[in-house]
Amino acid sequence: MKTAYLGPEGSYSSLAARKLCPTAEYLPRKSFYAAVSCVLACEADCAVLPVENTLQGAVAQNLDLLYASAELFAVKEYLLQIDHRLIFRRGVNLSRIERVFSHEQAILQCGKFLSENLPQAKIVYTDSTAESLSVMQKETDAGIVGAHMAREGYELSAENIADEKKNFTHFLLVKRGEEHLPVHSGRVYFAASCPHEPGALLKMLQILAVYDLNMTKIESRPKKDSPGEYNFFIEFEGDIAANGVRAALSRLQEYTKNFKLLGCY
Amino acid sequence: MKTAYLGPEGSYSSLAARKLCPTAEYLPRKSFYAAVSCVLACEADCAVLPVENTLQGAVAQNLDLLYASAELFAVKEYLLQIDHRLIFRRGVNLSRIERVFSHEQAILQCGKFLSENLPQAKIVYTDSTAESLSVMQKETDAGIVGAHMAREGYELSAENIADEKKNFTHFLLVKRGEEHLPVHSGRVYFAASCPHEPGALLKMLQILAVYDLNMTKIESRPKKDSPGEYNFFIEFEGDIAANGVRAALSRLQEYTKNFKLLGCY
Repeated sequence: MKTAYLGPEGSYSSLAARKLCPTAEYLPRKSFYAAVSCVLACEADCAVLPVENTLQGAVAQNLDLLYASAELFAVKEYLLQIDHRLIFRRGVNLSRIERVFSHEQAILQCGKFLSENLPQAKIVYTDSTAESLSVMQKETDAGIVGAHMAREGYELSAENIADEKKNFTHFLLVKRGEEHLPVHSGRVYFAASCPHEPGALLKMLQILAVYDLNMTKIESRPKKDSPGEYNFFIEFEGDIAANGVRAALSRLQEYTKNFKLLGCY
Repeated sequence: MKTAYLGPEGSYSSLAARKLCPTAEYLPRKSFYAAVSCVLACEADCAVLPVENTLQGAVAQNLDLLYASAELFAVKEYLLQIDHRLIFRRGVNLSRIERVFSHEQAILQCGKFLSENLPQAKIVYTDSTAESLSVMQKETDAGIVGAHMAREGYELSAENIADEKKNFTHFLLVKRGEEHLPVHSGRVYFAASCPHEPGALLKMLQILAVYDLNMTKIESRPKKDSPGEYNFFIEFEGDIAANGVRAALSRLQEYTKNFKLLGCY
């Protein structure tokens, strides 16, 4: 099975890909868009996409990608704990580290540790936490903030250095074709738009309530081509094979505009 | 009036700050958190914070900051059109540009233009679009993606080079103390959590519907300290002085947990 994701190796997406598809052939790509395109062009069997992070919120770009492609469905999920470590050349003392390389988001999430322990270090932003390692290849005065990337000659800090330790990213495994949806599920994810009038979203939620379905996630995304109108992305607990779930989805499809089942898992 | 925002000069936040407070003393800060801290410490009268972008979705960090500070209220809003330009040394031909510097988000939003017009260029990610200008100070073979930053010796591309031209960021002007809230408003913004059970959000929305209040925005944010529970950020059309709005807010405050009026404008 060929699995596409946002690379390079060592990225959080690559870690999630290895959990979701332990024996796959891996296709790291330069963007989420490129990873999804691989699946649509049948060059990959699936793509692994982050859709929400505890601290950063929804990954809006991926919600839009999943919604825009009628043939793409999420069929499996994985919750990855984000665990930032300081990585540095073996034997180097923290006080000698003059520069710290990492992706902006990772740096932001470790602000407290960096200002308390490496106040002397200059921060250098890089493309991704993974690529930071090659940047500092020959430097002894440099550290990086990254994840699980122990390599020959490098050391990882013993502790997670993030300010907020409870930090998870919700990944979805996405395939092409409705036939890949599992027969049973614990949760169902859909998106739809509804008329911009008082009570429109309320009615969508009433449909769920009528069938005792518990919502687990809701996001609103402004529609690009129609200011003031929103698409809603809603996840709820339910078995896709259950009568109540099927009835609710069918009623939602009738009531809303541009309804799309995003997946179930 | 002292106005804090995410700097440096030339950042989108600095542009919004100049629109919201045309005659202020400007205090560019290194992070949103630092800008908000200025207001809480009474070193600034207000802060300018982005809360949503058409393409990227909610700026989760700022929603959390606004919600966490009992004394902070949004009192004014501004919708900034994001307009990416290619900036290069005057007289340099596009084909000679070998490197393009910018913030990752800006690069992502101009992917089509860059791959079609500058396929030869190496992309270099920088801290912000504004800081990119100093990075390429003495380079003639470099360009940057940035906004409205014409300076002596530099040229801006005539067109917005973003793939998606309809791209707006919603900024809020935030002050310390409820007394700064306007007497009348067009929209009201609040946040609250509700028990994780079927129909809990539904009831919140029913309260709005009972008073014919039209919701304009809804975001869910996972609660950091309580997995599976969500905070909801809801904006609706309404005059804060109107009886219906006051009654709805009062009922919401009774029904929900951790209710906070985020502001009105």
